Amino acid sequence: MTNEEILAITALNSWKLVIGRFDHILAEWTDEQLQNRIAPDKNRLFYLVGHLTAVHDRMFPLLGLGERLHPELDEVYITNRDRLLADPVGASDLRKAWAEVNSKLTVAFERFTPKDWLQKHAAVSADDFAKDPTRNRFAVVMSRTNHASYHSGQAVLAE
Amino acid sequence: MTNEEILAITALNSWKLVIGRFDHILAEWTDEQLQNRIAPDKNRLFYLVGHLTAVHDRMFPLLGLGERLHPELDEVYITNRDRLLADPVGASDLRKAWAEVNSKLTVAFERFTPKDWLQKHAAVSADDFAKDPTRNRFAVVMSRTNHASYHSGQAVLAE
Repeated sequence: MTNEEILAITALNSWKLVIGRFDHILAEWTDEQLQNRIAPDKNRLFYLVGHLTAVHDRMFPLLGLGERLHPELDEVYITNRDRLLADPVGASDLRKAWAEVNSKLTVAFERFTPKDWLQKHAAVSADDFAKDPTRNRFAVVMSRTNHASYHSGQAVLAE
Repeated sequence: MTNEEILAITALNSWKLVIGRFDHILAEWTDEQLQNRIAPDKNRLFYLVGHLTAVHDRMFPLLGLGERLHPELDEVYITNRDRLLADPVGASDLRKAWAEVNSKLTVAFERFTPKDWLQKHAAVSADDFAKDPTRNRFAVVMSRTNHASYHSGQAVLAE
């Protein structure tokens, strides 16, 4: 393997590890327990799962990987705070959406060459990207991996 | 820049961003507020700062960057749970240790070439590393970045 291939694979492993850990947390909760809050007056687990699924789903267009699978999640789990709007899906459909989005993304990432990782993402202009080539797909996936870790730290606090 | 350089710099930016965000959280709390808990019966903020400082300090020997700066933090903030032992440092010394450890690490990371990032870390044997070259310094720093994100998500819950 070349250096650039090893660097890309090492980062992909980091994404897989964080998603796998969240899968594990999620598998430990019953559908009823998903209504528990991470702390008094804070978000429900259900909201966190919806939020992460919606944010990850947005990576399809952002990384040029095609259409989104679940745009219906944004209004409730990104635009608004928890409990302002009713959940648009039940627990089993939410679990399915979470698994589907991440598995489809991971398959796409596994096919990326280092050059693919370094393509610009859709939210940066060609001019800005020319000035700063770190605004690439690799940066987006690392940012989402950190974001998933951030909410994983909260999810484990629920009782 | 070469592809491998851009990949390495993109990842280093991710480390800097996460540390910078935790710096920001930390700056918002008074020394007294560091005694608050992230949720009822959970860790104190003070413990989280001690924990992250100790874990990051361990990267000096793990990544071949020299001696640790604060080995005295391990017993209280890694080996034991929060509140089992008295804090070995006051708030201002803890803030200083946090800043010192991360700033020294960041300076070292900024000097790494892609080849430096891909060196094996000290906790893997030469044989195992030959079989799996992703057990490198780059993987360690991405793992610690995710770990810091995990606890950042908890720290923002404190009131």
